[in-house]
Amino acid sequence: MSRVSVIGRGITKFGKREDSIKEMLIEACRDAIIEANRPRMDAVFIGNFASGSLANQEILGSIVTNELGLGNIPSIKMEGACASGGLAFRQAYQLVKAGEYDTVLVAGAEKMTAFDTETVTKAINHAMDNASSESASGLTFPGFFGVLANRYIHEYGAEREHLAMVAMKNREYAINNPIAQFTKPVEMEDIIHAKPITDPLGLFDCSPISDGAAAVVIQRGANGVEILSSGQASGTPLMQEVDNLLHMPATYYSGKHAYERAGLGPEDIDVVELHDCFSMTEIIAIEELGFFEKGKGWKALEKGVTKHGGLVPVNTSGGLLSKGHPIGATGIAQIIQVVDQLNGCAVNQVDNAEIGLAQNLGGTGAYSTVHLLRKKGA
Amino acid sequence: MSRVSVIGRGITKFGKREDSIKEMLIEACRDAIIEANRPRMDAVFIGNFASGSLANQEILGSIVTNELGLGNIPSIKMEGACASGGLAFRQAYQLVKAGEYDTVLVAGAEKMTAFDTETVTKAINHAMDNASSESASGLTFPGFFGVLANRYIHEYGAEREHLAMVAMKNREYAINNPIAQFTKPVEMEDIIHAKPITDPLGLFDCSPISDGAAAVVIQRGANGVEILSSGQASGTPLMQEVDNLLHMPATYYSGKHAYERAGLGPEDIDVVELHDCFSMTEIIAIEELGFFEKGKGWKALEKGVTKHGGLVPVNTSGGLLSKGHPIGATGIAQIIQVVDQLNGCAVNQVDNAEIGLAQNLGGTGAYSTVHLLRKKGA
Repeated sequence: MSRVSVIGRGITKFGKREDSIKEMLIEACRDAIIEANRPRMDAVFIGNFASGSLANQEILGSIVTNELGLGNIPSIKMEGACASGGLAFRQAYQLVKAGEYDTVLVAGAEKMTAFDTETVTKAINHAMDNASSESASGLTFPGFFGVLANRYIHEYGAEREHLAMVAMKNREYAINNPIAQFTKPVEMEDIIHAKPITDPLGLFDCSPISDGAAAVVIQRGANGVEILSSGQASGTPLMQEVDNLLHMPATYYSGKHAYERAGLGPEDIDVVELHDCFSMTEIIAIEELGFFEKGKGWKALEKGVTKHGGLVPVNTSGGLLSKGHPIGATGIAQIIQVVDQLNGCAVNQVDNAEIGLAQNLGGTGAYSTVHLLRKKGA
Repeated sequence: MSRVSVIGRGITKFGKREDSIKEMLIEACRDAIIEANRPRMDAVFIGNFASGSLANQEILGSIVTNELGLGNIPSIKMEGACASGGLAFRQAYQLVKAGEYDTVLVAGAEKMTAFDTETVTKAINHAMDNASSESASGLTFPGFFGVLANRYIHEYGAEREHLAMVAMKNREYAINNPIAQFTKPVEMEDIIHAKPITDPLGLFDCSPISDGAAAVVIQRGANGVEILSSGQASGTPLMQEVDNLLHMPATYYSGKHAYERAGLGPEDIDVVELHDCFSMTEIIAIEELGFFEKGKGWKALEKGVTKHGGLVPVNTSGGLLSKGHPIGATGIAQIIQVVDQLNGCAVNQVDNAEIGLAQNLGGTGAYSTVHLLRKKGA
C-alpha cells in the first residue's frame, strides 16, 4: 500500500453567509486545487448531509466537477449525517491508497442559515431513525445530548461547570481563528447563565447552525502531511437501544481501528480535532478515544490538560461549538486544522506537533470516523 | 488485485408500496444476506437519492446496519441522482478488490409514490443544477429528454415509432418479471396514442414513479458471478453547456473505462441492462456504449437486434420503463438482472449468456456507471 498525503487545502469562513452551497463549494475547492498545484484530479468526493432537503440541490459531485472544468472524471456525494465529511475523506483515502486514483479532491459543505428553526430542526432530525417512536415523540439532538449530560453528571460526579469549561476552551481558541463563526470573548458566567437549550445545556454548550465549505486535495506519495490510517464504525441510531448512554461504540471502534492500523495509541497523539457538537460530546469523545479513563474526562477539563501546555490540546480550531458546524464541511475542516498543526502553520499552533487525530461523529452515535495524520518527514 | 463476485441477491416488488424505505431496505438486504450465507459483513453501502427530501430519512447506512444486527461495521450512503445505486456498487467493488473489505452488503432504495406530483417533481429536479436558470425556467426531466428525442428524430431520420418500439420491447419483457411495476400487455397503438408527457414522449416512453429496494452481497473470490470491471464518469448537469444533445459523455466514458479495464469490447457482451429512464435514453445509450454507430440505434430497434435472437438483448428485466424506477434501487436491480442472466436463472433468460453489462445514468447525463460481469467459471 502506498503513502497518501494532503497536498492542498481550501476553507470558507463559517457562519451566516449569503452565497449558495455551490458557490461555497467552488470557493473552497478552487483554493485547495490551487494550493495542490496539480494538472488534473482523478475524482471528486463530496460530503454533505442535507443539501436535498434544505438547499434543493443534490448531484453536488457532478456540479463541482463540471463547474471547475475537471473533465469527465468520477464524482460522488457521501452522506452519513454530521460525519459526511469524514466519510468522504475516508473513501477517497482508501481508494488513493489502493491505487484506484492518484489525486482526489475531497470537499464538504452545508447551507443551513437560510431557513427557519423548524425547517432546520426537521432536517437535522433526518439523522435519527424516524421509523421509530423517538423522533415522533419530540426527541431532538440537543434533547439527546442533554440527557447524556445529566446522566454523566449523575454517574461520575462532574458538575455543570465542567461542560462550561469545554465551551470556554473552544471559544478561547476560536478567537484566533479567522474562519470561525464566533470570535467574541465570553466569561464562564456568560456560559453558565446563557439561554437554556436542554437542561443542563445552555446556548454555548451547543454547536450553532452554520454555512460553510472545506476542501482538501489528497495524493499518493509523501509530498505533504501523511494520512497514516482511517477508522470507521457505526452505532445504533436509536436511543432506546443504547445499553449505556455514556458509551459511544462508533467513536470507540473508529478510534481503535485507526490506532491499530497505524500501530499507534492515544499516547502518541500531539493534537486532536474532535466532534464537539455539544460540550458533553467532547468529554465523552476524549474518553472513548482513550485519552482519559471512562468517567475521568471532566477532570482533564478541570486541570486544563486538553489545552496548550497540557497533555493533548483538543479542538484548537475552536471546535464545532465556536468555529461553527456546517454539517458536511465539519469533517474536512477538522482535517485541515490537523494538517495546519502538523505543518506548523495553524491558528493556536501546538509546539512540535508530529501526530494528529481527527474524529467526526454522525447522528447520536450512528457513525464515527477517525483519521491519524503525521507531519511530513516525521 | 483480487477477483470479486456477487454471492447474494435480494429485491422487493417495485411499484406503489405501503411500507417505508427502511422496511423495503431491510426486506431486500435480509434476502441478500441469507442467500450469501456468510457469518459477517464487513461494511454496508447504500445508494439513495431523495430519502432526505421525500422520506424525511437520512443515515440509511447506519439504520440498515443496526436493524440487521451487523455490529459496529462501517456504513455509508452514496448519492449521484439516478446513478446512486451504481455508484454504491462501484465503491463497494473497488474497496473489496483493494482488500479493504472482504464481504460487503450493497443496497439501494427509494420511496416515491407517497407524495403528490409537485413534491416528487421538485425532488427529482434536485438532480439538476438549481443555481442555474434552467430549472427555474421550468425544465424538467421529461422536458429535457423530449428535446433530445425531437433532435434525434430530426438529425437521424428516426420516427416516433422507433421510440415506441423501445417501450414495447421493455413491456414485453416486464410481463414475465414478477417484481415489475407494469405487467399488463400493451399494443404499439396504445403507446403511440398514450397521454402525451413532453412532445414526442408519451406516458409509456417515460419511467414511472416507483417504490422499491434491491440489495446484493459481494465478496472477494470467485464464488459467484464475477465483477470484471467498473467504469464511472461525470458530465455536465447543465443543458446549456451540452455541445451535442445526442452525445452523453458520461455514458460513453463510463463504458470506455469499463471495457478497457476488462480488456473487452461491445462485441463481447451477451446481455445488457441499461438506463432507459425514457425510451429515447435507451437508444442513445446503445450508441454510446458502442453497440451501434451514432445515429443508427433506432435501426437496431426496427430490426429487433436488442431483443432475444438479436445481437444483444437489452433490458430483459423490463427496464426502468416497465420494471419501474425507484431511483436508488435501480442500479442494484440492474446488477441483479445481469447476475441472474449469467447464472442462467433470469426472467427472459438469454441462452448461453457469459458476459453482461449494466449501465446506470444519473441526472441529464451528470453521472454514469458501467459494470461488466462474467458467468462463474466462464
